[in-house]
Amino acid sequence: MTGYTGEGADSPQATVLDKGFVRLVDHMGDDSSVVQAARVAYGQGTKSVREDRDLIRYLMRHRHTSPFEHVIFKFHVKAPLFVVAQWVRHRTWSYNFVSYRYSEAPDEFYMPERFRLQSGANKQGSGELVNDVLDRQAHSEFSEVMIAASDSYKYMVGENVAREMARMILPQNLYTEFYATVDLHNLLHFLSLRLDAHAQWEIREYARVIQGLVQGVVPECMDAWWDYSYFAESFSRNEMYQIRRLLNGLDPDYIGMTKSEQSEFWKKLDIDPPSSMAPASADA
Amino acid sequence: MTGYTGEGADSPQATVLDKGFVRLVDHMGDDSSVVQAARVAYGQGTKSVREDRDLIRYLMRHRHTSPFEHVIFKFHVKAPLFVVAQWVRHRTWSYNFVSYRYSEAPDEFYMPERFRLQSGANKQGSGELVNDVLDRQAHSEFSEVMIAASDSYKYMVGENVAREMARMILPQNLYTEFYATVDLHNLLHFLSLRLDAHAQWEIREYARVIQGLVQGVVPECMDAWWDYSYFAESFSRNEMYQIRRLLNGLDPDYIGMTKSEQSEFWKKLDIDPPSSMAPASADA
Amino acid sequence: MTGYTGEGADSPQATVLDKGFVRLVDHMGDDSSVVQAARVAYGQGTKSVREDRDLIRYLMRHRHTSPFEHVIFKFHVKAPLFVVAQWVRHRTWSYNFVSYRYSEAPDEFYMPERFRLQSGANKQGSGELVNDVLDRQAHSEFSEVMIAASDSYKYMVGENVAREMARMILPQNLYTEFYATVDLHNLLHFLSLRLDAHAQWEIREYARVIQGLVQGVVPECMDAWWDYSYFAESFSRNEMYQIRRLLNGLDPDYIGMTKSEQSEFWKKLDIDPPSSMAPASADA
Amino acid sequence: MTGYTGEGADSPQATVLDKGFVRLVDHMGDDSSVVQAARVAYGQGTKSVREDRDLIRYLMRHRHTSPFEHVIFKFHVKAPLFVVAQWVRHRTWSYNFVSYRYSEAPDEFYMPERFRLQSGANKQGSGELVNDVLDRQAHSEFSEVMIAASDSYKYMVGENVAREMARMILPQNLYTEFYATVDLHNLLHFLSLRLDAHAQWEIREYARVIQGLVQGVVPECMDAWWDYSYFAESFSRNEMYQIRRLLNGLDPDYIGMTKSEQSEFWKKLDIDPPSSMAPASADA
Repeated sequence: MTGYTGEGADSPQATVLDKGFVRLVDHMGDDSSVVQAARVAYGQGTKSVREDRDLIRYLMRHRHTSPFEHVIFKFHVKAPLFVVAQWVRHRTWSYNFVSYRYSEAPDEFYMPERFRLQSGANKQGSGELVNDVLDRQAHSEFSEVMIAASDSYKYMVGENVAREMARMILPQNLYTEFYATVDLHNLLHFLSLRLDAHAQWEIREYARVIQGLVQGVVPECMDAWWDYSYFAESFSRNEMYQIRRLLNGLDPDYIGMTKSEQSEFWKKLDIDPPSSMAPASADA
Repeated sequence: MTGYTGEGADSPQATVLDKGFVRLVDHMGDDSSVVQAARVAYGQGTKSVREDRDLIRYLMRHRHTSPFEHVIFKFHVKAPLFVVAQWVRHRTWSYNFVSYRYSEAPDEFYMPERFRLQSGANKQGSGELVNDVLDRQAHSEFSEVMIAASDSYKYMVGENVAREMARMILPQNLYTEFYATVDLHNLLHFLSLRLDAHAQWEIREYARVIQGLVQGVVPECMDAWWDYSYFAESFSRNEMYQIRRLLNGLDPDYIGMTKSEQSEFWKKLDIDPPSSMAPASADA
Repeated sequence: MTGYTGEGADSPQATVLDKGFVRLVDHMGDDSSVVQAARVAYGQGTKSVREDRDLIRYLMRHRHTSPFEHVIFKFHVKAPLFVVAQWVRHRTWSYNFVSYRYSEAPDEFYMPERFRLQSGANKQGSGELVNDVLDRQAHSEFSEVMIAASDSYKYMVGENVAREMARMILPQNLYTEFYATVDLHNLLHFLSLRLDAHAQWEIREYARVIQGLVQGVVPECMDAWWDYSYFAESFSRNEMYQIRRLLNGLDPDYIGMTKSEQSEFWKKLDIDPPSSMAPASADA
Repeated sequence: MTGYTGEGADSPQATVLDKGFVRLVDHMGDDSSVVQAARVAYGQGTKSVREDRDLIRYLMRHRHTSPFEHVIFKFHVKAPLFVVAQWVRHRTWSYNFVSYRYSEAPDEFYMPERFRLQSGANKQGSGELVNDVLDRQAHSEFSEVMIAASDSYKYMVGENVAREMARMILPQNLYTEFYATVDLHNLLHFLSLRLDAHAQWEIREYARVIQGLVQGVVPECMDAWWDYSYFAESFSRNEMYQIRRLLNGLDPDYIGMTKSEQSEFWKKLDIDPPSSMAPASADA
């Protein structure tokens, strides 16, 4: 899209990762649109109306999601393929992608600033940064493969091999571009999953930037979302029983709770359990 | 929503049926947004670009639907319940309805200007207008039931019976209001089904008015849709064989075609079959 | 569908309300299908596998919803129109309805066993039963309007007025029938909303019966859902702060909480606040 | 999923490409389920019923799609990443994927049997096979990059670099596995797009195999789909005008038709235009 000069071409573009970006191309509506859609329900029968901010917070608190579907955001995104593969699992967005069947793939790949170690606790995540020696080696490995893949690709395209075939050899850190349109309700669901600590760091970076762009358009909705969704905690039936025990001065009995549930319980409460109540250690 | 003074409150409101309306409250994008979304696919590899109008027509012709999903329309509608029941079968729209559990139902019912007879040909449709005598009688029947239902409703609400129960007795021509948001691709699908001669006349009126509102926003898309979708005809494998016979100077053989398919065939061609080729009559 | 003798015609049919029913016609998969879909993620890399029951509970606890989408349920339902209007707001179901444009409407209407008063606390809900005198009067009002509407309908259909027009006069407690297919994830969402105390009692009855039918097919999923979803409680950022105050022996400060949030807070905890911590009364 | 022994593990598995497969794990319903869902619409008012086969053909012909949503298919698929990227654009399927964040990626890549040249006519497609010399060179290029990428990946995983990072370097012909569930209506839409000559050959292979598996379950639906959808042709308003001219013995006037529309017109008719009617050549 370099050189694009059409609608929204001058909207601010936020850099993400080393070569990616997110641009908020267009949007429809704002905080007041959510209020407008919610208020239709009350019709003429309503005598008094809740203040707008309170109404938005009420809707978010009680999971009345439909009024948030009338606010729409349209983004232009540049991201690596492995990020896109996670993104498109969100099936309520509308997407239009660059086609590397149609046009030649650029020579642009994501190179992590610093490699991370496999997480021990989280089998699907990463943790500490690797040491300097390994980091240099990993960068070197990545660079070599990227150059080899890129050279092969260019050679094949030069020989008129079909682009749809030649591209197969390009690695998953290849950058691509797309337009993506979504309503606020489904965008908030995306943010809940992709700002989460379990999401891969790279897509969290996109979610973080999108959150910032959206905050400016629907500040009251986002504030309500932080309070009633993102920073809210859900406690199971059993956990509620344990909380009641605690409030009544009893130690938790943990009956029916796995060890990881016991740890998650205290983590959600964000307090250290008194030693008498500490959950059994995982290897006990 | 009488007296509503918020966003979009001053947008033009088109009357539909006797007491309904459609208002285009807001929209995102126009013809150029479709082009923008489609062009991302070509990236930097494209040397020349098709003219916008031609590109839109190309997309419509080849059923490349995704670029049309980035244009959004938001309507405020007042319609009778039986129209709404047909409307909400379209599950890609976002809706917010007046709640007659929350607020008291208004005393507003749809009264047809003229009643229609059951269609003979179309078991689910209507045809000729009824005669004057029957029309007066039907209006009188409708009026009496509506007044009786409305009186019962008001009595029960007056006695503090739950609104969610009292409303059960109100007939399906009761008017209600809603906000509805949809993207252009799904709106065109709605129009294809609801402008069709098989749709009930009342919802066709809403589709007709919506078409007019949308035509002003995306004139090139709508023109392409008229040409390549609405006024296009689809011919089955067998019908294609018959067309080839005709173009080769042969009579159709109709093998494997039911009588109704034979009639539909000539109807789609919009020409009278030569008597030698006339389909067997249905009762032959 | 009286007299229907096809596939699933002999599956057990549970009566709902006075004349409605729900029949589980068919389903695909069970608890083990959820496990199967989840396990694909671990591939050959997994050394040990969690027990099936624990895995289902883990998925439910962490809102990993996609494995639940591979279990499908198909229902045959008979319900009044006002219940259907709430049901079809769930846009992830597939529906096929009786068409009263095509076939004549039956003379079957929902008659509540006992009318309920408008709720004071919940503006959209109902509360106490009405007294005997009012109940008799309400039944009488309903009966009269239903008979008048039904007579008008039959008269018009008899005179060959189009069925699609004549039906407009029938009230919203008219029964209709439909087939409805949905995956387990979206069914659980339906149950969360429609088993809720804020849902209208009549649709809660349908949700209750469906829950019972589904419990037999996916008992582990349902048990996990009761524990981690239905009987779970969500606490906002501010409420978490108040819980921590309580656990640290401090009174809540309620800063930034509306009065209704304060009441909801104690209600979710399901304990009476010590008088020193009682929330300010709503009219204080 | 090697070694998987659960539900559906013994269902037949069809090989696709060099190392991929499709397995029909489970399904709900068959031709009779479509009929059942459609018949609910006619209720008791129907005197006679169309034969099942005719009803299915009628539904397909008139684009009555909802009855086809009650038949469900669940597949287990192994396919290269670039095929998956095209597959997941279909947002009405439910998917569960192997996670290469969680488990180590296998050393399995798609190697084309024979490379294809870039198509001249179709900017996004491929055409003729490449010559022997280039084919050997392309295979050699692919092999080298795949080995280099695979070695780098293994090195990094061996050094405990996070799997979610190491995998970035693996090319897009890496195989992955997933479960995918979809209803018949949306499956037919997938087949329409992915059996099309414009789809990439590799995903057409998956579509071809899926079509074969589904044909056995819903033979009448598939036959109707071949006749009324796949092998049907759609003619625009202007093309209909040209057909009428031809049937009336006139030459087409092509007014308003681009050159490519003129060629497509004769291609759809599948007859050679008489020389007097030949469309202007593209470079004229």
